[in-house]
Amino acid sequence: MSDQAADRGALLRGKIETYMACFAADDRDGWVELFAPDAWIEDPVGTPRRNGRDEIAAFWDETHAVPDKIELVPLGITTVIGDEAIFTMQARATLGNQVFGIDIIDLMTFDEAGQITTMRAFFDPTAMKPLD
Amino acid sequence: MSDQAADRGALLRGKIETYMACFAADDRDGWVELFAPDAWIEDPVGTPRRNGRDEIAAFWDETHAVPDKIELVPLGITTVIGDEAIFTMQARATLGNQVFGIDIIDLMTFDEAGQITTMRAFFDPTAMKPLD
Repeated sequence: MSDQAADRGALLRGKIETYMACFAADDRDGWVELFAPDAWIEDPVGTPRRNGRDEIAAFWDETHAVPDKIELVPLGITTVIGDEAIFTMQARATLGNQVFGIDIIDLMTFDEAGQITTMRAFFDPTAMKPLD
Repeated sequence: MSDQAADRGALLRGKIETYMACFAADDRDGWVELFAPDAWIEDPVGTPRRNGRDEIAAFWDETHAVPDKIELVPLGITTVIGDEAIFTMQARATLGNQVFGIDIIDLMTFDEAGQITTMRAFFDPTAMKPLD
Protein backbone atom coordinates (compact mmCIF):
# COMPACT_ATOMS: atom_id res chain seq x y z
CA MET A 1 0.00 0.00 0.00
CA SER A 2 1.37 3.43 -0.90
CA ASP A 3 1.74 6.16 1.72
CA GLN A 4 -1.00 8.04 -0.08
CA ALA A 5 -3.37 5.08 0.14
CA ALA A 6 -2.46 4.61 3.80
CA ASP A 7 -3.21 8.28 4.53
CA ARG A 8 -6.50 8.01 2.68
CA GLY A 9 -7.39 4.87 4.60
CA ALA A 10 -6.64 6.58 7.91
CA LEU A 11 -8.76 9.58 6.92
CA LEU A 12 -11.78 7.45 6.04
CA ARG A 13 -11.41 5.27 9.13
CA GLY A 14 -11.42 8.45 11.17
CA LYS A 15 -14.65 9.51 9.49
CA ILE A 16 -16.27 6.21 10.43
CA GLU A 17 -15.14 6.61 14.03
CA THR A 18 -16.61 10.11 14.06
CA TYR A 19 -19.81 8.73 12.54
CA MET A 20 -20.20 6.36 15.48
CA ALA A 21 -19.07 8.96 18.01
CA CYS A 22 -21.83 11.31 16.82
CA PHE A 23 -24.42 8.68 17.72
CA ALA A 24 -22.83 8.17 21.14
CA ALA A 25 -22.85 11.93 21.76
CA ASP A 26 -26.32 12.42 20.22
CA ASP A 27 -24.61 14.95 17.90
CA ARG A 28 -27.07 15.31 15.05
CA ASP A 29 -25.35 18.29 13.44
CA GLY A 30 -21.90 16.72 13.60
CA TRP A 31 -23.30 13.61 11.97
CA VAL A 32 -25.06 15.48 9.16
CA GLU A 33 -21.87 17.41 8.39
CA LEU A 34 -20.07 14.15 7.64
CA PHE A 35 -22.14 13.94 4.47
CA ALA A 36 -21.48 15.79 1.21
CA PRO A 37 -24.30 18.27 0.44
CA ASP A 38 -25.60 16.04 -2.38
CA ALA A 39 -25.07 12.74 -0.58
CA TRP A 40 -27.72 10.03 -0.47
CA ILE A 41 -28.40 7.23 1.97
CA GLU A 42 -30.38 4.00 1.63
CA ASP A 43 -31.09 2.85 5.18
CA PRO A 44 -32.05 0.08 5.28
CA VAL A 45 -31.24 -1.15 1.78
CA GLY A 46 -34.50 -1.65 -0.08
CA THR A 47 -36.11 1.57 1.17
CA PRO A 48 -36.23 4.87 -0.76
CA ARG A 49 -33.08 6.96 -0.84
CA ARG A 50 -32.83 10.12 1.26
CA ASN A 51 -31.19 12.74 -0.91
CA GLY A 52 -29.19 15.64 0.45
CA ARG A 53 -28.42 16.83 3.97
CA ASP A 54 -31.97 18.00 4.74
CA GLU A 55 -33.49 14.59 4.04
CA ILE A 56 -30.59 12.90 5.80
CA ALA A 57 -31.13 15.10 8.87
CA ALA A 58 -34.85 14.21 8.77
CA PHE A 59 -33.83 10.54 8.72
CA TRP A 60 -31.82 11.09 11.91
CA ASP A 61 -34.89 12.62 13.54
CA GLU A 62 -37.10 9.71 12.45
CA THR A 63 -34.75 7.09 13.81
CA HIS A 64 -34.34 8.96 17.08
CA ALA A 65 -38.06 9.69 17.55
CA VAL A 66 -38.84 6.56 19.57
CA PRO A 67 -35.62 5.31 21.24
CA ASP A 68 -34.11 7.21 24.16
CA LYS A 69 -30.67 6.57 22.69
CA ILE A 70 -29.03 4.84 19.74
CA GLU A 71 -25.46 3.60 19.89
CA LEU A 72 -23.37 2.06 17.13
CA VAL A 73 -20.88 -0.55 18.31
CA PRO A 74 -18.18 -1.89 15.94
CA LEU A 75 -18.41 -5.64 15.32
CA GLY A 76 -14.87 -6.22 14.14
CA ILE A 77 -14.58 -5.66 10.40
CA THR A 78 -13.71 -2.31 8.84
CA THR A 79 -12.23 -2.33 5.35
CA VAL A 80 -11.29 0.74 3.33
CA ILE A 81 -10.45 0.35 -0.35
CA GLY A 82 -9.95 3.46 -2.44
CA ASP A 83 -13.00 5.67 -1.96
CA GLU A 84 -15.11 2.91 -0.44
CA ALA A 85 -15.46 1.72 3.11
CA ILE A 86 -17.43 -1.19 4.51
CA PHE A 87 -17.84 -2.10 8.14
CA THR A 88 -19.83 -4.23 10.55
CA MET A 89 -21.55 -2.80 13.59
CA GLN A 90 -24.41 -3.40 15.98
CA ALA A 91 -26.97 -0.63 16.42
CA ARG A 92 -28.25 -0.62 19.99
CA ALA A 93 -31.46 1.24 20.67
CA THR A 94 -32.44 1.95 24.26
CA LEU A 95 -36.17 2.11 25.03
CA GLY A 96 -36.80 2.55 28.72
CA ASN A 97 -34.99 -0.25 30.53
CA GLN A 98 -34.59 -2.43 27.46
CA VAL A 99 -31.85 -2.37 24.82
CA PHE A 100 -32.53 -3.79 21.37
CA GLY A 101 -29.72 -4.71 19.00
CA ILE A 102 -29.40 -5.31 15.30
CA ASP A 103 -26.34 -6.25 13.26
CA ILE A 104 -25.64 -3.98 10.29
CA ILE A 105 -23.16 -3.82 7.43
CA ASP A 106 -22.65 -0.27 6.20
CA LEU A 107 -21.18 0.42 2.76
CA MET A 108 -20.04 4.00 2.15
CA THR A 109 -18.39 5.98 -0.61
CA PHE A 110 -16.47 9.20 -0.03
CA ASP A 111 -15.43 12.23 -2.05
CA GLU A 112 -11.96 13.73 -2.27
CA ALA A 113 -12.48 15.74 0.91
CA GLY A 114 -13.53 12.66 2.84
CA GLN A 115 -17.22 13.52 2.95
CA ILE A 116 -19.69 10.65 2.64
CA THR A 117 -21.32 10.65 -0.81
CA THR A 118 -23.39 7.46 -0.49
CA MET A 119 -24.29 5.13 2.35
CA ARG A 120 -26.17 1.85 2.14
CA ALA A 121 -27.07 0.08 5.37
CA PHE A 122 -27.67 -3.66 4.99
CA PHE A 123 -29.85 -5.16 7.69
CA ASP A 124 -33.17 -6.85 8.22
CA PRO A 125 -35.28 -4.66 10.55
CA THR A 126 -37.23 -7.74 11.66
CA ALA A 127 -33.99 -9.22 13.04
CA MET A 128 -33.85 -6.67 15.86
CA LYS A 129 -33.68 -8.50 19.17
CA PRO A 130 -33.61 -7.59 22.86
CA LEU A 131 -30.11 -7.76 24.35
CA ASP A 132 -29.38 -9.16 27.81
CA MET B 1 -41.99 -9.94 4.93
CA SER B 2 -44.19 -11.57 2.29
CA ASP B 3 -44.08 -15.32 1.69
CA GLN B 4 -42.56 -14.58 -1.69
CA ALA B 5 -39.77 -12.50 -0.14
CA ALA B 6 -39.20 -15.20 2.47
CA ASP B 7 -38.93 -17.87 -0.25
CA ARG B 8 -36.53 -15.70 -2.19
CA GLY B 9 -34.45 -15.09 0.91
CA ALA B 10 -34.26 -18.82 1.62
CA LEU B 11 -33.23 -19.51 -1.99
CA LEU B 12 -30.39 -16.98 -1.90
CA ARG B 13 -29.22 -18.09 1.55
CA GLY B 14 -29.06 -21.62 0.17
CA LYS B 15 -26.90 -20.39 -2.70
CA ILE B 16 -24.48 -18.78 -0.24
CA GLU B 17 -24.29 -22.01 1.75
CA THR B 18 -23.57 -23.91 -1.46
CA TYR B 19 -20.94 -21.31 -2.36
CA MET B 20 -19.09 -22.05 0.88
CA ALA B 21 -19.69 -25.80 0.61
CA CYS B 22 -18.02 -25.82 -2.82
CA PHE B 23 -14.85 -24.42 -1.25
CA ALA B 24 -14.98 -27.03 1.51
CA ALA B 25 -15.43 -29.81 -1.06
CA ASP B 26 -12.89 -28.31 -3.51
CA ASP B 27 -15.74 -28.38 -6.05
CA ARG B 28 -14.58 -25.94 -8.72
CA ASP B 29 -17.27 -26.84 -11.25
CA GLY B 30 -20.08 -26.64 -8.72
CA TRP B 31 -18.84 -23.22 -7.67
CA VAL B 32 -18.57 -21.88 -11.22
CA GLU B 33 -22.13 -23.05 -11.97
CA LEU B 34 -23.45 -20.81 -9.21
CA PHE B 35 -22.67 -17.85 -11.45
CA ALA B 36 -24.78 -16.60 -14.37
CA PRO B 37 -22.92 -17.02 -17.68
CA ASP B 38 -22.35 -13.25 -17.93
CA ALA B 39 -21.58 -12.70 -14.25
CA TRP B 40 -18.63 -10.66 -13.05
CA ILE B 41 -16.63 -10.69 -9.87
CA GLU B 42 -14.34 -8.10 -8.28
CA ASP B 43 -12.21 -10.00 -5.77
CA PRO B 44 -10.77 -8.23 -3.94
CA VAL B 45 -12.56 -4.91 -4.54
CA GLY B 46 -10.14 -2.58 -6.30
CA THR B 47 -8.82 -5.22 -8.71
CA PRO B 48 -10.01 -5.74 -12.31
CA ARG B 49 -13.30 -7.52 -12.82
CA ARG B 50 -13.34 -11.10 -14.05
CA ASN B 51 -16.10 -11.34 -16.63
CA GLY B 52 -17.98 -14.53 -17.43
CA ARG B 53 -17.61 -18.10 -16.22
CA ASP B 54 -14.31 -18.77 -17.99
CA GLU B 55 -12.55 -15.87 -16.28
CA ILE B 56 -14.27 -16.72 -13.01
CA ALA B 57 -13.06 -20.33 -13.28
CA ALA B 58 -9.53 -19.02 -13.98
CA PHE B 59 -9.82 -16.94 -10.82
CA TRP B 60 -10.60 -20.09 -8.83
CA ASP B 61 -7.49 -21.71 -10.27
CA GLU B 62 -5.32 -18.70 -9.41
CA THR B 63 -6.50 -18.56 -5.82
CA HIS B 64 -6.05 -22.30 -5.39
CA ALA B 65 -2.60 -22.44 -7.06
CA VAL B 66 -0.59 -21.95 -3.86
CA PRO B 67 -2.69 -23.05 -0.85
CA ASP B 68 -3.37 -26.73 -0.24
CA LYS B 69 -6.92 -25.83 0.72
CA ILE B 70 -9.19 -22.80 1.10
CA GLU B 71 -12.18 -22.81 3.42
CA LEU B 72 -14.81 -20.11 3.92
CA VAL B 73 -16.18 -19.88 7.45
CA PRO B 74 -19.27 -17.74 8.21
CA LEU B 75 -18.59 -14.92 10.68
CA GLY B 76 -22.15 -14.31 11.79
CA ILE B 77 -23.87 -11.82 9.49
CA THR B 78 -25.83 -12.83 6.40
CA THR B 79 -28.44 -10.39 5.11
CA VAL B 80 -30.60 -10.89 2.03
CA ILE B 81 -32.62 -7.97 0.68
CA GLY B 82 -34.40 -8.36 -2.63
CA ASP B 83 -31.84 -9.52 -5.18
CA GLU B 84 -28.85 -8.61 -3.01
CA ALA B 85 -27.03 -10.55 -0.34
CA ILE B 86 -24.19 -9.50 1.91
CA PHE B 87 -22.34 -11.66 4.39
CA THR B 88 -19.26 -11.85 6.57
CA MET B 89 -16.85 -14.75 6.45
CA GLN B 90 -13.27 -15.71 7.13
CA ALA B 91 -11.27 -17.27 4.31
CA ARG B 92 -8.81 -19.80 5.71
CA ALA B 93 -5.96 -20.88 3.48
CA THR B 94 -3.90 -23.90 4.47
CA LEU B 95 -0.24 -23.92 3.41
CA GLY B 96 1.58 -26.91 4.78
CA ASN B 97 1.08 -26.93 8.54
CA GLN B 98 0.01 -23.29 8.75
CA VAL B 99 -3.46 -21.80 8.31
CA PHE B 100 -3.82 -18.16 7.34
CA GLY B 101 -7.07 -16.26 7.80
CA ILE B 102 -8.59 -13.11 6.45
CA ASP B 103 -11.96 -11.52 7.20
CA ILE B 104 -14.09 -10.75 4.15
CA ILE B 105 -17.42 -9.09 3.41
CA ASP B 106 -18.98 -10.41 0.21
CA LEU B 107 -21.70 -8.45 -1.60
CA MET B 108 -23.61 -10.37 -4.26
CA THR B 109 -26.48 -9.77 -6.65
CA PHE B 110 -28.61 -12.53 -8.12
CA ASP B 111 -30.84 -13.01 -11.15
CA GLU B 112 -34.37 -14.40 -11.17
CA ALA B 113 -33.10 -17.98 -11.25
CA GLY B 114 -30.88 -17.39 -8.22
CA GLN B 115 -27.63 -17.33 -10.16
CA ILE B 116 -24.97 -14.88 -9.00
CA THR B 117 -24.72 -11.93 -11.40
CA THR B 118 -22.13 -9.84 -9.52
CA MET B 119 -19.85 -10.45 -6.56
CA ARG B 120 -17.61 -7.94 -4.83
CA ALA B 121 -15.29 -9.19 -2.08
CA PHE B 122 -14.22 -6.50 0.37
CA PHE B 123 -10.96 -7.27 2.17
CA ASP B 124 -7.43 -6.05 2.53
CA PRO B 125 -5.06 -8.79 1.32
CA THR B 126 -2.30 -7.43 3.57
CA ALA B 127 -4.50 -8.15 6.61
CA MET B 128 -4.08 -11.92 6.18
CA LYS B 129 -2.70 -13.36 9.39
CA PRO B 130 -1.59 -16.77 10.65
CA LEU B 131 -4.22 -18.44 12.85
CA ASP B 132 -3.35 -20.33 16.02
